[in-house]
Amino acid sequence: MMAVPSTRSPLVAMVGGGQLARMTHQAAIALGQSLRVLALAADEPAAQVTPDVMIGSHTDLDDLRRVAAGADVLTFDHEHVPTELLEKLVADGVNVAPPPQALVHAQDKLVMRRRLEALGAAVPRYLGLDSLDRLDEVDAFVSRVDAPLVVKAARGGYDGRGVRLARDLADAREITRAYLADGVPVVLEERVELRRELSALVARSPFGQGAAWPVVETVQADGICVQVIAPAPELPEGVAATAQQLALRLAAELGVVGVLAVELFETTSGALLVNELAMRPHNSGHWTMDGSRTSQFEQHLRAVLDYPLGDTDAVAPVTVMANVLGAARTPDMTVDERLHHLYARMPDARVHLYGKDERPGRKVGHINFLGDQGAGVAQVPKLRERAELAAHWLSHGQWSDGWDPHA
Amino acid sequence: MMAVPSTRSPLVAMVGGGQLARMTHQAAIALGQSLRVLALAADEPAAQVTPDVMIGSHTDLDDLRRVAAGADVLTFDHEHVPTELLEKLVADGVNVAPPPQALVHAQDKLVMRRRLEALGAAVPRYLGLDSLDRLDEVDAFVSRVDAPLVVKAARGGYDGRGVRLARDLADAREITRAYLADGVPVVLEERVELRRELSALVARSPFGQGAAWPVVETVQADGICVQVIAPAPELPEGVAATAQQLALRLAAELGVVGVLAVELFETTSGALLVNELAMRPHNSGHWTMDGSRTSQFEQHLRAVLDYPLGDTDAVAPVTVMANVLGAARTPDMTVDERLHHLYARMPDARVHLYGKDERPGRKVGHINFLGDQGAGVAQVPKLRERAELAAHWLSHGQWSDGWDPHA
Repeated sequence: MMAVPSTRSPLVAMVGGGQLARMTHQAAIALGQSLRVLALAADEPAAQVTPDVMIGSHTDLDDLRRVAAGADVLTFDHEHVPTELLEKLVADGVNVAPPPQALVHAQDKLVMRRRLEALGAAVPRYLGLDSLDRLDEVDAFVSRVDAPLVVKAARGGYDGRGVRLARDLADAREITRAYLADGVPVVLEERVELRRELSALVARSPFGQGAAWPVVETVQADGICVQVIAPAPELPEGVAATAQQLALRLAAELGVVGVLAVELFETTSGALLVNELAMRPHNSGHWTMDGSRTSQFEQHLRAVLDYPLGDTDAVAPVTVMANVLGAARTPDMTVDERLHHLYARMPDARVHLYGKDERPGRKVGHINFLGDQGAGVAQVPKLRERAELAAHWLSHGQWSDGWDPHA
Repeated sequence: MMAVPSTRSPLVAMVGGGQLARMTHQAAIALGQSLRVLALAADEPAAQVTPDVMIGSHTDLDDLRRVAAGADVLTFDHEHVPTELLEKLVADGVNVAPPPQALVHAQDKLVMRRRLEALGAAVPRYLGLDSLDRLDEVDAFVSRVDAPLVVKAARGGYDGRGVRLARDLADAREITRAYLADGVPVVLEERVELRRELSALVARSPFGQGAAWPVVETVQADGICVQVIAPAPELPEGVAATAQQLALRLAAELGVVGVLAVELFETTSGALLVNELAMRPHNSGHWTMDGSRTSQFEQHLRAVLDYPLGDTDAVAPVTVMANVLGAARTPDMTVDERLHHLYARMPDARVHLYGKDERPGRKVGHINFLGDQGAGVAQVPKLRERAELAAHWLSHGQWSDGWDPHA
């Protein structure tokens, strides 16, 4: 590794070398910084584009100490660092942001559910179990909620992994038993009747300043976010403000430092229930890279470094973000060729690629489309259609509307 | 230097490790790439933030060959690579963009003036001299133009260096003689009666596609650009279109590949004269990083890689850019502390720092301010005032309006 010259600016160390670290580095450059990254391998998205890379594991205390050495703050590209290791770093004097006692609410769904309930935040009806001894409580819970059930591993899941739909009581018991037998606590939840999913993204600094972006709608397919619409179309202003205030309050109550995403269910009756928390830049905030005056990546850096936070205003009336997912069969055309064709058809597509190998369902990039000034919510369907076409093209090398530039 | 894993995307090599390469790297990341940089030293702005840095000189053929090896295209952060070396690289088969026969018009003011004249572009009245034998022609030129004279070294100047104002004939002769005696050809020019300076920024791809951003006003102090206003306020639409068309025509006629900045004088009578050309991302395009759908850095990459070009629409009705220049006396407060205070007062300031040591008059960063939708040209004075306050603060650690947060 080459020696990195000092910029006499704060040094931010990030655990994890994924796309979030990669995009945080882009923001760090503007602030006169260069991110230090702890990556598992030199070909991870952030490791490809940053000079200050340490190869190591987020579950190895020595590696964590190495990346934290001399850094002004240690923050995260993912939630997978064990709490006990973070507590050791804090005991060492490392400035961990978000601190472990906050981060645990993004790591452990059971801890999160219990805490949110105690704070009076609306959550789906749930049953938390951390021992096989209490397996019989599943029966009573199933008969009480009288709804399809979702069984979630309390720790370790993401992008739909670790979340299973239970068809019936026997199924619920069986899935629960399997997790508990592996030592994984479980959250059983009613499957909420949804209108849609929303995300309230905020940032909070150690000083206590909070800033909220417009509340967005997130569209999922097979448990993976495929589109984000900012702001969430036709969300009543009062409901949006309530969601923002909830997210800011949770950030303060939990002691979050950095970006907090509060994933919400909007029920068919219009109520908001908290689904998940994430304490880092989040997929539901990728639209901010092109659609907001301050991107979530810059804001995360500003928050963890205790800078005053940036203006969260949107620069367009609507922004639609679509994730590019690896296709089941990698197209014959290279990514580069696909990008040429995309740009030829859609010169306004704002493409962000992560430098990842294409594997089925893997997030390898995203694309933002900004709406036109003067056109309001009516342009959302067209923007969504273009975003879907663009993302499908980059994934599959096929225009799903049959478009042929040579026809 | 660590081995950089392949992203299986095009590899762009950039000669020069300054802030333009630094900001081009930010754009390269989004395209799934990582820039390779030839820098003079490891503490140069781009070398601090990119993993693929070669230390070497842009006047050393071996170093140039080393950075070009395996790259899809070789492009530039500055104009200082000698033409004969570039021609050797072209002979080697290197894809140099812009090609040397185009770039020479941004390297040599005399070659540029003659070519522009031949192309019918309006330029200031000038006299080109490349030999002491012709020094007497200065007398005739001075009596013909009957105006203050500017004497420019044909090569090697930037940011006002290599440009001298001649007080009288004797002065003009003396400055000219000194340059010619050093073997530097000279351009003597009438000092044009200016309303203001403009810049027409365009990009051109090898395929021949061109794209123009809105024409901007550039504000200079002591020969250095201090502010850019995009678009140029109250510039008649027809004049703006003429300037864009001129820039696109010059890009095509000269065979430019990449970004071309055409610096223009708007005379007191409203005519446009070409002052300078730059064939790379340019200070007059820094506003595009926040104010346009496609930044000049991404566009330059797209152009040199022959991707279809991006949408150049502005995202705000006005954007004002201010350069942050090193102060005569470096403030006691660190840059980091100054940044905290700036963000506290102006949460919408879009700051871009270059990681450079502060030296008097040196460009160490820039700040963009976006105007509000719905407010038109009337907000320009306020935006300019805020930009000037912000830039002065970051330079000097003093609010020039006497603002005191504790008062």
